Amino acid sequence: MALYMDIHKNVKGLTKQAVEGAHQKDLEVQGKHGTKFHNFWYNETDGTVFCLAEAPSKEAFAAVHREAHGLMADEIIEVNEGGG
Amino acid sequence: MALYMDIHKNVKGLTKQAVEGAHQKDLEVQGKHGTKFHNFWYNETDGTVFCLAEAPSKEAFAAVHREAHGLMADEIIEVNEGGG
Repeated sequence: MALYMDIHKNVKGLTKQAVEGAHQKDLEVQGKHGTKFHNFWYNETDGTVFCLAEAPSKEAFAAVHREAHGLMADEIIEVNEGGG
Repeated sequence: MALYMDIHKNVKGLTKQAVEGAHQKDLEVQGKHGTKFHNFWYNETDGTVFCLAEAPSKEAFAAVHREAHGLMADEIIEVNEGGG
């Protein structure tokens, strides 16, 4: 398992309700792809979303979004987590 | 106070030790700028760093990095945090 941060840019019509609904769908399908979402951050004005999740691969991470809602990230970056 | 995520891209010579050292310097000066760093994530291979912090403004957030080590972000995005 590795940790990944993805970035979605210029998501159209991004609202708190829409992004929370999409995230809920991610949680519902993540187990099928061996993935565990940790958190997400978003900006309603510019339509940016960051998602942080553990996954067996970048492809598995992407597969969750593909199956859940089809809103694919612009970038997926493997990361290490620093100290708080 | 607002929450911000920044992105540093293609940081040269990024190592675990270097990024942790830079973060430590952020923590030492953040109080002067009313800012509180929460966490950071990094990729040693491509030199990407994400920093998450509460700050009174985008400028205050940037001022911490400027004073601490001079490694300025490519983007600073105000965000809301979603559910875990």
